[in-house]
Amino acid sequence: MKIAILGFGSVGRGIANIVNSKNTGIIITAVADSKSGLIENNGIDLDAVLENKKKTGLCGKENITPDEIIENADYDVLVEVTPTDATTGEPALGYIKKALGAGKHVVTSNKGPIALEYKALKELADKNGCLLKYEATVCGAIPLIHSLQYGLAGNEIKKIYGVFNGTCNYILTRMADEGLTYKQALLEARELGYAEADPTYDVKGIDAAIKLVILANTILGYDKTLQDVETEGIDRLTSEALLLAAEDDLTIRLIGEIDVGKKILRVSPRVLPKNHTLVVQDTLNAVTAETDLAGDVTFIGKGAGSIETASAIISDLLFIRECNGGRS
Amino acid sequence: MKIAILGFGSVGRGIANIVNSKNTGIIITAVADSKSGLIENNGIDLDAVLENKKKTGLCGKENITPDEIIENADYDVLVEVTPTDATTGEPALGYIKKALGAGKHVVTSNKGPIALEYKALKELADKNGCLLKYEATVCGAIPLIHSLQYGLAGNEIKKIYGVFNGTCNYILTRMADEGLTYKQALLEARELGYAEADPTYDVKGIDAAIKLVILANTILGYDKTLQDVETEGIDRLTSEALLLAAEDDLTIRLIGEIDVGKKILRVSPRVLPKNHTLVVQDTLNAVTAETDLAGDVTFIGKGAGSIETASAIISDLLFIRECNGGRS
Repeated sequence: MKIAILGFGSVGRGIANIVNSKNTGIIITAVADSKSGLIENNGIDLDAVLENKKKTGLCGKENITPDEIIENADYDVLVEVTPTDATTGEPALGYIKKALGAGKHVVTSNKGPIALEYKALKELADKNGCLLKYEATVCGAIPLIHSLQYGLAGNEIKKIYGVFNGTCNYILTRMADEGLTYKQALLEARELGYAEADPTYDVKGIDAAIKLVILANTILGYDKTLQDVETEGIDRLTSEALLLAAEDDLTIRLIGEIDVGKKILRVSPRVLPKNHTLVVQDTLNAVTAETDLAGDVTFIGKGAGSIETASAIISDLLFIRECNGGRS
Repeated sequence: MKIAILGFGSVGRGIANIVNSKNTGIIITAVADSKSGLIENNGIDLDAVLENKKKTGLCGKENITPDEIIENADYDVLVEVTPTDATTGEPALGYIKKALGAGKHVVTSNKGPIALEYKALKELADKNGCLLKYEATVCGAIPLIHSLQYGLAGNEIKKIYGVFNGTCNYILTRMADEGLTYKQALLEARELGYAEADPTYDVKGIDAAIKLVILANTILGYDKTLQDVETEGIDRLTSEALLLAAEDDLTIRLIGEIDVGKKILRVSPRVLPKNHTLVVQDTLNAVTAETDLAGDVTFIGKGAGSIETASAIISDLLFIRECNGGRS
């Protein structure tokens, strides 16, 4: 199987390293970063590319664009791991459409296009006999999408709820355990690289809300947008609220919830017993699917990180290789 | 997709009910219980079969045997849900071999054949272009096998450990929470239907050990038997031990563990912090996979029950329909 990787940040490089070091039988025939690209239809020399990237900041030549790669490289699967734009989905959306239109499978970690245009992309994929996989968009290394689509196939999903944002979970863990204020905990999260310089996207619940939209539209067949999610973040929580909760063996977590019966998507801080399954520590994610046959099934794991995201991408790639014939 | 169901106890009937009530597009063309069988190549009349079973104790005619069904019914997948014999695997083992040999896919909930003969069965399946699926053999409704094979594909599994037996977990939960003795808790588990009249298989850790053998042989490519598992049950645990643990915010759970590095399979009661992810309540199962890329991923859910087992069977069936072309 040959793949072309768009986006050569920590995730893109992580995928390249894993693909090469693990003897996966996958060949990388093209890579692109935001300024350059490289096509080597017999397989790129990863060490040389990484060396070049380190020296010049470029992975290839400036005249080779993602569009050029999508149109002219020799590949079976486009791995799209460029930065997310949650408002327009671009430029990733255009890349994905072009690749699917050309009959190529697509694996992406990009929340924007999946949250905004899944239905159209899925139709395009089906029309062209391709697979569109996006495990990495929700809860990083946890095989949540895959489990909901295959592992729990035949089940009616009644609710999906849990901790979808590791940054918020870290902040809340630290506020509860150490009595830190929100600002102190946020500062610590930034220093450890768990929060961005502008943490709005995480702490206001937007990241969790986008993940709910992705699950709702891709697993439940809804047609929701970010505006349909009742969203409240953790940025107004006080350490007093957490201390008060602790007196009754309770704590607070930012919970995202899809209630199928009530057709509600909601992100909000919730009070939970300290020993509740979803009260995970630090940057972990934890999600429960409430189903008619299997009952409640909970998944806990690392929701972010470049290797974890790469792990989800690799699993999607291997699944396409394994099951490709079944659909295309 | 047409299926033949061998075994018409609560699991077999559960599968039949779900397949019919959910509009799965799956047609049941044959069923057998221990004394009778029925072949209707256009699809059985489930209501009539259930009525007959209730009245006469038989699902069909006494001269129609499982072998007759395997050889002569019109079906794509054999659903093998007869009772487990952990020592010989029979008669299920023979049924599965015959069906795979005839080019039919097999889905089973039967631990015996998978624990004893997976390698030979998988070779037979591959040779005949068939799939052999067995999600229901380990942790009931939790899509653990599927996640390890597909959702975490590309990951190196370093350890698999957790709570694999709901009966023991119920007994330990009750001993810890209510200060019951082992005998009292076991009696309660029996009254609630969580423990068999002869609880040896569960409380001595044998059931958990068989699940470890299945995971080791099918996921990790080992060639282990029940004798290779260091097994200690919960039947000698005292309520004093649990009370003592509780003083330090600890508790005891029966943990099954596969350590890939040390090549050890072990089932034993272990002391864990009360807030440990694997300290689940009542009859729940909880399993953590320690991996190189995805880190630790934990799965929590119902490990037993006829509907939960049926759920795993249905997911396997739908997976075969979805991905069949990729392998056969």
